[in-house]
Amino acid sequence: MVRLGAYDGAQFQTARAMSTLDLSSQYEAVRGASLVACEPLAIEDYVIQPMADASPPKWHLAHVTWFFEIFLLREHVPGYELFNPGFEYLFNSYYNGVGEQFPRPRRGQLSRPTVAEVMDYRGYVDRAMIKLLEKRVEPAMAFKITLGLHHEQQHQELLFTDLKYNLGNNPLFPAYHQFKRSAARQPEPLSFLPFAGGIHQIGRDSGAEGFGYDNESPRHDVLLRDFELADRLITNGEFLTFMDDGGYRRPELWLSDGWTRVNDAKSGFTAPLYWRQIDGKWHEYGLSGLTPLDLNLPVCHISAYEADAYARWANARLPTEAEWEVAATSVMTSGKEPAGNFVESGQLHPLASEGSGLQQMWGDVWEWTSSSYAPYPGFRPFSGALGEYNGKFMANQLVLRGGSCVTPASHIRSTYRNFFYPGDRWQFSGIRLARD
Amino acid sequence: MVRLGAYDGAQFQTARAMSTLDLSSQYEAVRGASLVACEPLAIEDYVIQPMADASPPKWHLAHVTWFFEIFLLREHVPGYELFNPGFEYLFNSYYNGVGEQFPRPRRGQLSRPTVAEVMDYRGYVDRAMIKLLEKRVEPAMAFKITLGLHHEQQHQELLFTDLKYNLGNNPLFPAYHQFKRSAARQPEPLSFLPFAGGIHQIGRDSGAEGFGYDNESPRHDVLLRDFELADRLITNGEFLTFMDDGGYRRPELWLSDGWTRVNDAKSGFTAPLYWRQIDGKWHEYGLSGLTPLDLNLPVCHISAYEADAYARWANARLPTEAEWEVAATSVMTSGKEPAGNFVESGQLHPLASEGSGLQQMWGDVWEWTSSSYAPYPGFRPFSGALGEYNGKFMANQLVLRGGSCVTPASHIRSTYRNFFYPGDRWQFSGIRLARD
Amino acid sequence: MVRLGAYDGAQFQTARAMSTLDLSSQYEAVRGASLVACEPLAIEDYVIQPMADASPPKWHLAHVTWFFEIFLLREHVPGYELFNPGFEYLFNSYYNGVGEQFPRPRRGQLSRPTVAEVMDYRGYVDRAMIKLLEKRVEPAMAFKITLGLHHEQQHQELLFTDLKYNLGNNPLFPAYHQFKRSAARQPEPLSFLPFAGGIHQIGRDSGAEGFGYDNESPRHDVLLRDFELADRLITNGEFLTFMDDGGYRRPELWLSDGWTRVNDAKSGFTAPLYWRQIDGKWHEYGLSGLTPLDLNLPVCHISAYEADAYARWANARLPTEAEWEVAATSVMTSGKEPAGNFVESGQLHPLASEGSGLQQMWGDVWEWTSSSYAPYPGFRPFSGALGEYNGKFMANQLVLRGGSCVTPASHIRSTYRNFFYPGDRWQFSGIRLARD
Amino acid sequence: MVRLGAYDGAQFQTARAMSTLDLSSQYEAVRGASLVACEPLAIEDYVIQPMADASPPKWHLAHVTWFFEIFLLREHVPGYELFNPGFEYLFNSYYNGVGEQFPRPRRGQLSRPTVAEVMDYRGYVDRAMIKLLEKRVEPAMAFKITLGLHHEQQHQELLFTDLKYNLGNNPLFPAYHQFKRSAARQPEPLSFLPFAGGIHQIGRDSGAEGFGYDNESPRHDVLLRDFELADRLITNGEFLTFMDDGGYRRPELWLSDGWTRVNDAKSGFTAPLYWRQIDGKWHEYGLSGLTPLDLNLPVCHISAYEADAYARWANARLPTEAEWEVAATSVMTSGKEPAGNFVESGQLHPLASEGSGLQQMWGDVWEWTSSSYAPYPGFRPFSGALGEYNGKFMANQLVLRGGSCVTPASHIRSTYRNFFYPGDRWQFSGIRLARD
Repeated sequence: MVRLGAYDGAQFQTARAMSTLDLSSQYEAVRGASLVACEPLAIEDYVIQPMADASPPKWHLAHVTWFFEIFLLREHVPGYELFNPGFEYLFNSYYNGVGEQFPRPRRGQLSRPTVAEVMDYRGYVDRAMIKLLEKRVEPAMAFKITLGLHHEQQHQELLFTDLKYNLGNNPLFPAYHQFKRSAARQPEPLSFLPFAGGIHQIGRDSGAEGFGYDNESPRHDVLLRDFELADRLITNGEFLTFMDDGGYRRPELWLSDGWTRVNDAKSGFTAPLYWRQIDGKWHEYGLSGLTPLDLNLPVCHISAYEADAYARWANARLPTEAEWEVAATSVMTSGKEPAGNFVESGQLHPLASEGSGLQQMWGDVWEWTSSSYAPYPGFRPFSGALGEYNGKFMANQLVLRGGSCVTPASHIRSTYRNFFYPGDRWQFSGIRLARD
Repeated sequence: MVRLGAYDGAQFQTARAMSTLDLSSQYEAVRGASLVACEPLAIEDYVIQPMADASPPKWHLAHVTWFFEIFLLREHVPGYELFNPGFEYLFNSYYNGVGEQFPRPRRGQLSRPTVAEVMDYRGYVDRAMIKLLEKRVEPAMAFKITLGLHHEQQHQELLFTDLKYNLGNNPLFPAYHQFKRSAARQPEPLSFLPFAGGIHQIGRDSGAEGFGYDNESPRHDVLLRDFELADRLITNGEFLTFMDDGGYRRPELWLSDGWTRVNDAKSGFTAPLYWRQIDGKWHEYGLSGLTPLDLNLPVCHISAYEADAYARWANARLPTEAEWEVAATSVMTSGKEPAGNFVESGQLHPLASEGSGLQQMWGDVWEWTSSSYAPYPGFRPFSGALGEYNGKFMANQLVLRGGSCVTPASHIRSTYRNFFYPGDRWQFSGIRLARD
Repeated sequence: MVRLGAYDGAQFQTARAMSTLDLSSQYEAVRGASLVACEPLAIEDYVIQPMADASPPKWHLAHVTWFFEIFLLREHVPGYELFNPGFEYLFNSYYNGVGEQFPRPRRGQLSRPTVAEVMDYRGYVDRAMIKLLEKRVEPAMAFKITLGLHHEQQHQELLFTDLKYNLGNNPLFPAYHQFKRSAARQPEPLSFLPFAGGIHQIGRDSGAEGFGYDNESPRHDVLLRDFELADRLITNGEFLTFMDDGGYRRPELWLSDGWTRVNDAKSGFTAPLYWRQIDGKWHEYGLSGLTPLDLNLPVCHISAYEADAYARWANARLPTEAEWEVAATSVMTSGKEPAGNFVESGQLHPLASEGSGLQQMWGDVWEWTSSSYAPYPGFRPFSGALGEYNGKFMANQLVLRGGSCVTPASHIRSTYRNFFYPGDRWQFSGIRLARD
Repeated sequence: MVRLGAYDGAQFQTARAMSTLDLSSQYEAVRGASLVACEPLAIEDYVIQPMADASPPKWHLAHVTWFFEIFLLREHVPGYELFNPGFEYLFNSYYNGVGEQFPRPRRGQLSRPTVAEVMDYRGYVDRAMIKLLEKRVEPAMAFKITLGLHHEQQHQELLFTDLKYNLGNNPLFPAYHQFKRSAARQPEPLSFLPFAGGIHQIGRDSGAEGFGYDNESPRHDVLLRDFELADRLITNGEFLTFMDDGGYRRPELWLSDGWTRVNDAKSGFTAPLYWRQIDGKWHEYGLSGLTPLDLNLPVCHISAYEADAYARWANARLPTEAEWEVAATSVMTSGKEPAGNFVESGQLHPLASEGSGLQQMWGDVWEWTSSSYAPYPGFRPFSGALGEYNGKFMANQLVLRGGSCVTPASHIRSTYRNFFYPGDRWQFSGIRLARD
């Protein structure tokens, strides 16, 4: 009775062309894509929160709407009435500047508002936003709307990752969609490509056209040494070799905090997050269900600790974010957009590397870097309550780069900095090696 | 969009007459009542588990069905095929004799099976059960079916209490049903009724007609001293006087373990579970919503620690279960059934005492006793895996007596022993005083 | 450098004769025995608290002194100056009536006052007490002094059990004293002795001579059924048979809460507390060190859950406290004192049963009963702050009877009720079976 | 009875001259200083562990000895017999390469070995080491001995900080030593000194003379922008102004993880670790006892979160470690050693700034930087089990620079990198501001 197969990524294509659309059309495209992503869901799927980090889809749908209501409508539409005053508190994620927040770990303890009520909320806000967009929109307001859309795209990705966590931990292993992947061919042996050191520029010019987050700026000089970057991602097969070599049992391969996590009595690591051993054979859960592990696909859903241990085992290291960005821009023809296996491909799973040269920099999996998530020199946060968007998370997290198979293509840039705690595994995160 | 008011208790009336029905009709009546109780629910309400003890309605509906499938159909119907083999694990509550169980605190982390699938499961099992019941049913099988129905009635009560916990902790305070209660009149001042000590008999004769749980037997002698029992339950107003007298801040009134709970940093007690202070005025959440506290209604949703502290403050004590049973049977005309404010009244909330004499012994709220839940002398558990039904919980819990406003009337007896941990508050539990 | 062998129990003999001594001599005997028990200790042993329940010896020595200072000297000696005003807070165990308490789990985080300072504290208080005792002591004061002495005897027992927990969990397994036990002979096969039911009296007459705690009174009628009691304690060998029969892995043998404890990820039970398997052979730690397990000695340091599981496995049950008391008094020649392996024997370990008839009722190990620790009908706590002595613990605990090999003989009575949580194991607790 | 005043820092002077001594004399000087630091201790002070991070002095004394026994004596002295084979496990801190470790949080649960036994252990190992040092010592061995001495110096500092945590959390506030500080004069108003950006070199040349840890190398280029550094540390008075301005209650000043810590239900931050408000007046605990807060002294014992929040409030930021090192070396006359308020001053407390120019870079308090503790480009860990010394901690920690008032002067260098978690407060850690 749960409709399978509805999702094929095509619906995200409109949103993809964002940069060519006017703001109204962008608004409709992005807002619509959120609903499209939810189409295959049963009502029940919208509600639960299988761990503190993985919010219910219902919450995502409401929270991104809250963003427009609180930062745009309430501020800029005279006489605007909140859809439900209780929602200001319920759907505030972490904006202390706005007020108190409903506790994050309890988001899955709310059966009301129902999904239908959340959809009504979206409709109510959308109508008001459309009306607002019909008038002349000043740059400051346009900026906040654009920010709201990129914010919603981030939550589209989270919606997929959180849903995967829900379904992938259900003993019945239900699928989100039906997708027939042809067997991947074995990638070429891993090789390293050289890059020259010296002074490079990374980051985004604050005055640049198009959209960028505050944390990507300012553009600034960095000093690099010569380095090499692996030409593709590490595969399941390669990671299995690491495991078979005692990878998870050899403390000398691990950072101290990582070793503690590996040995955690309750949630110790023994394999990537969605690997399941059934009758002695490894399987992997993906959004189209549980299948035998494909050794040729990129390894996915691992923590930075596992990535780092793998790198040490392989006599390599993780790249810094500056190295990653320098390499990534070196292969982008100027003005071209990132191309790769993003959400629009409909795969919702990383794909095998094909061909040679610098592969898989975009999409497939987020690539852990060794760089702590820290302010660029001269960093200035967004103003007002929106200043809480990025800056306050600059502690204890690491930067990931390149987007994943559930990232909307129009959301990503070479300067884009994603960030998670080194022990986090529920994002589509994988390994690219580097060495001196 | 959530339908309110559908529930009015009338639908439980058929099931009430259970003892006069044949087994098939009983089966249909009880099974049907579970669905009726769920009618006002939104799909979302079926799914969540707001705390470890409060299981999702969906889980209750499936688990009671599992009981029939595992203990009846699989055992007695040759060639019977399980609806879904994964359910044996998913919906086993605590029967180690049957196998492993899905962890209780994670019941709210399952969006699948959906509600519709659970309803299909019920239909599948019901059809097989009806068929089974059409044939000659042997006594042993009849017993297990009857047990299954009483088991389902227990979960009907839990369904209400768990749902109340869900909705009552939602900041929006949604109602389960619409119910207009006329203002309660002030009860008569509390008075104590005397009962003579000596050797009495309590418990249930194992060979008695009708149904009884193993923990109610055997009937046996107890030696009581003369005692007095309060003629009615303690009211909200009386409990508020205790609170205003510093009840929650005076350690000398509390058992040591209770004082620890009162002062728990995270979940300390400061008032009954569903009392909410809004702008300095006390309100109480009930299944028909949040309303100003009615001082004349019985206090409800308190732990045994609070009941005990109140009793000490009032220079009284809680009754033992033997005292309670002796008193309760003394006012029952032989052969009469318990009469009171049970689930069939449609109130789903305790009512004020009216009149005089021994009031409110039945229904309204479960009455904490001072008796530890322990085996009666000569206790014999049910045989086989069903032996896990009651006996293994005979540690650390206290007995409650008399049923509540969400107990099906046909489920209760004067010998009925309910049991919860002294710190539990999410059941409809209240205070009856006793003294020497 | 740590002196071994100093303790041999002889020093407790003086205190044993307590009932024949005047109050001054009793005071000196009991206070002196506390110091004697500490003689073999290194300073370091006085300081640490290896778990929340096991307080440092230094704390015991100070707390029992605090009792006399706060309840006697401060109240009855005009102009008495506290030794150190900070001690009122530091050494208050749980008397809310006296004031705030230093948190129990942090008792082992205090290096000051030093042991020498605590000894000074004892000397200071002792001098004042001796002076007080030289004057005419009124009955109320005499009662409080006697209570203080029995209180100190309780802490003498705790001192041994807490110290055993410390040393027995040290990987070096240091001994408290040197003691050469000759190998125990195999006891006679277990047999059950019959006792007649009917109305019996248990408990202590409030007006009786000598000392008794409030929780032992009043003496009252109980109604018993015919029962049988095992003639001796369960041995290590018998318990090992239970283990070899899968005792710790068979859920059907366990109370639900016990099964949870057995399977606790951090501190699950797999054997009695001080059993250690070394190279495949069982050893037991005792206060004279680690030795191969003696199968003929009573099993010791088990929880009530383990005792209950063993009983179920053996088709028996634990006795109620009333059964125990009736049986124990039946074999005491009127007026005789309990005789058994108490602290005065110098063994500090349970001994094997010898002979026949009802053995080992006194000393060796505390015997778990199935009785919840609850007030006797008509129970009246001590008055004032001393009312917190016993009554407030009457929740969630079980009664143990008979004393142990570290109990001072003059401390025990047939009506004596000890109480611990069913999961506690660090006391010398063992198994006596009963059956209907 | 606890001897006060014995410590005055003079005894560390010999060790200070380390670089001019031969290895034997260095060994004796450093090993002796550990004992001198312990002289004022009562036996009891050696034993306890007031929190998981603060190990008992006894453990420190044994662990540094273990280092010499395991890495030097066992490896290089044929036929060497371990003092006690059990110590290999008991006193291993974190070297997985050596074997299992006794759990860190339980170090304070060991009363044995006694202090006297640990002193015997030191003597035993010292005698063997002296003998070893009398022979020709090869460079590789000399390196390990030197490492062992620097290791011991680190633990000398920890011994002071852990002891302060013990005594400073004792409600009696005992002092470690008597020290009369004259009242500090008010420092000059804070001013910022400019430093030029560009390519600088930091870190230590692997081939350089003298000792350095692996994490300080290799020396490498860094690219800095022009920056300014505060000429002195932030004072208690300045921090109090921040507090009075609502510093601990304004989320916009805090990193998200810091805000979580501030609001932790159990151990939330409301002031620096050793500040105590008594009758409305702020006091500060120091190793010479509790005294009224001196507003002119540097603020001390704060987390990086508090330092960062203060900096944000002051419109400044924390320096990077490269900025710090560039500034520090700019004011060192080549070849000169760091001079400041180190352990040798006998103060054991930070002192007020006097004069102008770049003050207090050395000693007083460790200065939090904004730099994550990460490998320098080209980092190579020590070989063998010693490779666990530094590298494996390169996650989630921040670098601190400059040493403190309990650091031995001969232990510090301009390239020295200390590291702690951003929430740690029990080290002598304070604030130096920077800005662009």
